[in-house]
Amino acid sequence: MARLNGTHDPALRSWVESANTPDTDFPIQNLPLGVFRRRGEAAERARGGVAIGDRILDLAAAVAAGLFAGPAEAAARAAAGPALNPLMTMGNAAASALRARLSALLRAGAPERARVEPLLVPMAEAEMLLPATIGAFTDFLTSTYHTERGGRRTRPESPLPPNFKHLPVAYNSRASSVRVSGEAIRRPNGQRLRPDGTVHFGPCEALDFELELGLFIGPGNPVGEPVHIDFAPDHMFGYCLLNDWSARDIQRWESHPLGPFLSKSLSTSISPWVVTADALEPFCASAFPRAESDPKPLPYLHGEADQREGLMDIRMEAFLLTPRMRERGEPPARVTATNFTNMYWTFAQMVTHHMSNGCNLRPGDLLGSGTASGPTDESRACMAELTEAGTQPLTLPNGETRRWLEDGDEVIFRARAERDGFVPIGFGECRGRIAPAPAWPRGRNDA
Amino acid sequence: MARLNGTHDPALRSWVESANTPDTDFPIQNLPLGVFRRRGEAAERARGGVAIGDRILDLAAAVAAGLFAGPAEAAARAAAGPALNPLMTMGNAAASALRARLSALLRAGAPERARVEPLLVPMAEAEMLLPATIGAFTDFLTSTYHTERGGRRTRPESPLPPNFKHLPVAYNSRASSVRVSGEAIRRPNGQRLRPDGTVHFGPCEALDFELELGLFIGPGNPVGEPVHIDFAPDHMFGYCLLNDWSARDIQRWESHPLGPFLSKSLSTSISPWVVTADALEPFCASAFPRAESDPKPLPYLHGEADQREGLMDIRMEAFLLTPRMRERGEPPARVTATNFTNMYWTFAQMVTHHMSNGCNLRPGDLLGSGTASGPTDESRACMAELTEAGTQPLTLPNGETRRWLEDGDEVIFRARAERDGFVPIGFGECRGRIAPAPAWPRGRNDA
Repeated sequence: MARLNGTHDPALRSWVESANTPDTDFPIQNLPLGVFRRRGEAAERARGGVAIGDRILDLAAAVAAGLFAGPAEAAARAAAGPALNPLMTMGNAAASALRARLSALLRAGAPERARVEPLLVPMAEAEMLLPATIGAFTDFLTSTYHTERGGRRTRPESPLPPNFKHLPVAYNSRASSVRVSGEAIRRPNGQRLRPDGTVHFGPCEALDFELELGLFIGPGNPVGEPVHIDFAPDHMFGYCLLNDWSARDIQRWESHPLGPFLSKSLSTSISPWVVTADALEPFCASAFPRAESDPKPLPYLHGEADQREGLMDIRMEAFLLTPRMRERGEPPARVTATNFTNMYWTFAQMVTHHMSNGCNLRPGDLLGSGTASGPTDESRACMAELTEAGTQPLTLPNGETRRWLEDGDEVIFRARAERDGFVPIGFGECRGRIAPAPAWPRGRNDA
Repeated sequence: MARLNGTHDPALRSWVESANTPDTDFPIQNLPLGVFRRRGEAAERARGGVAIGDRILDLAAAVAAGLFAGPAEAAARAAAGPALNPLMTMGNAAASALRARLSALLRAGAPERARVEPLLVPMAEAEMLLPATIGAFTDFLTSTYHTERGGRRTRPESPLPPNFKHLPVAYNSRASSVRVSGEAIRRPNGQRLRPDGTVHFGPCEALDFELELGLFIGPGNPVGEPVHIDFAPDHMFGYCLLNDWSARDIQRWESHPLGPFLSKSLSTSISPWVVTADALEPFCASAFPRAESDPKPLPYLHGEADQREGLMDIRMEAFLLTPRMRERGEPPARVTATNFTNMYWTFAQMVTHHMSNGCNLRPGDLLGSGTASGPTDESRACMAELTEAGTQPLTLPNGETRRWLEDGDEVIFRARAERDGFVPIGFGECRGRIAPAPAWPRGRNDA
């Protein structure tokens, strides 16, 4: 935690009163970045903003008002447009300069309050957009607990694949269908193998969520040039919640031998606020403890600082809101409570491995951590784990049961980083509601 | 072949004499599109061009010279910039309007010759660039021959995966490292499992090529909206050669359970010229003949026109140029001769399947066909097949042997579509030379 500074001071309070309540995700110690517009505004009005309590500071307006100077101004300009990629390109020093100035502008007693206050937009009046243009989305598999629970069904002889403790397993997923929290998720059509051996095409019969953390890449690397793990954090810009929607029946049938494809590319939802690496500094945690019998990470995946502080202490939760709950005004039911310290690999290891073959990452690329399941029953972070692949229905508090997600179900993720001596910071929500599968489109000769 | 028109007329000749030689890839019946600049010009001078013989017609200059009107002008403007995506977005009707006008401008006796001739750039003075901004790259596995040869080693109990004849198997590959012909390919570092059971990290010991055809997507589809196979061709813009460089040792170790990742993302090379769907009309071929015992494609993958003309009769070749050949002035050795009609699935089936779950494709997305191997020994289209996974070295005409690609080796792909009664058209070359693996970068405390 060598990089703590005044912006992390737990004594800091904001003149935006809603940022000082104990339950807010967005105290002045957080200051996550996102892209928004006021509801009803044209698409080209999308612009960068900073969350503070239940308000958004309009960065485009703040730049225009002359509230920044020097490096903070350059950073604010880069964050003021319709995507955060320009700021991500500049890297974490620029983001930290912006953070320092935002912290000064928004803290209680700030002399600029009168100039800043008119630039706040109530979150309730804003529509959040994707925070970045995402050129690529890579999804990892880094929780032993998630992997072993799945593996006990599909690979009983070796629930954990032989390579799992040697490298952070990953696959390229689909960037074009990454969508921001709140957009409806249409149940996909797809192929599956039925127990009777027939192959069938139709609406997915085993739709699932996966609770993950997403990392946005900051500065990239040129093709052919790997990066040492010591410097991987220089490429790690910030974090969001990520729901890696999964069609389990399609996945089982399509994944051999080249891995999941349409079972994942149907859509991926992310929360709109990017919590910066800087904001999460106080919540760093040591790498997952290796057992005596575990292989040592190869040297390229072993970094001293990474071992000391490569994970983050983030409590992550998933909730289910069914149509009946919505109708009756019942609260969403919590189905998962886990922590990011359950992950076997750190994001620095994932980034280093990803670049190790010379593959170029680019600013705005998104890395998913993999389902963040832990050892306990309540920390199972997808339906496949919660229902043992649909065989043991989950009973919700109102008596409803679920084997998989049904049309109209809404999945809601929340997360908070907490540590004694610091003000907790949150991620906001990642929500997605299941819409029915589309009818198959007509052909040229169909009536 | 209902869509043949005057631009396909085999009697057509160009006033560009080099376009009329029997061995040119770029007769007036071809007119492929690409992006280029003159050597030495600044990066921002990249602009669209059309190959004709050994010349490039500068589309930006041709638009400025007022050589287009109406729909052809709109299309030419869309193709004149630093990437062809705007034209791809407009679709094949726009590309056909442009083609018709280009054919008129370049044919023998064209009254515009005096105005067009100064706008030609010798290919020898040009540097070709990526033809499009590639938002996503999906690679398929659609040759039974390639799949079975690989499967006999790795899955002897079932060389062809159970799903292979039910769906076009695919995985998301990496778009950021797709590069244009001619750029050096750095041997990747990576993890492998040694026969003694130890895990090792270092330069790839089994570097391979894969000879494929690439498809550029034209207009895309919105998230959640699949497309009927009858209309898939409306989304298929044009084709290039594609070398899906593969690190076989890394691939074997990393691919279970989520598929190939770093073994493929090291780099992918493509030829710079996009041969349009229109230009390839005369070379359409019927779908791969199913055996009685083969499953019928499910209805969503079965289209009448697609069965009749969904493949293309394209002869594809791979050559190897070793450092010793280069030194001695020997010609490259042909190691593969195959044909695209060997593929079990058509590109229309690949596109339809890709969109079937509602995944959105976007203009400029790239789909790889998979290694286009055929049944004969000479049609084996990667080193893994040619050398039985490195166990049977390939002997080249000059006596050299290869188990895998060595540093300094250059792989060259060429392809031509041929049919009686039509002028053959070619793809130009896709080249890539292997550079040594980079030394591992230094850490923070390294001297």
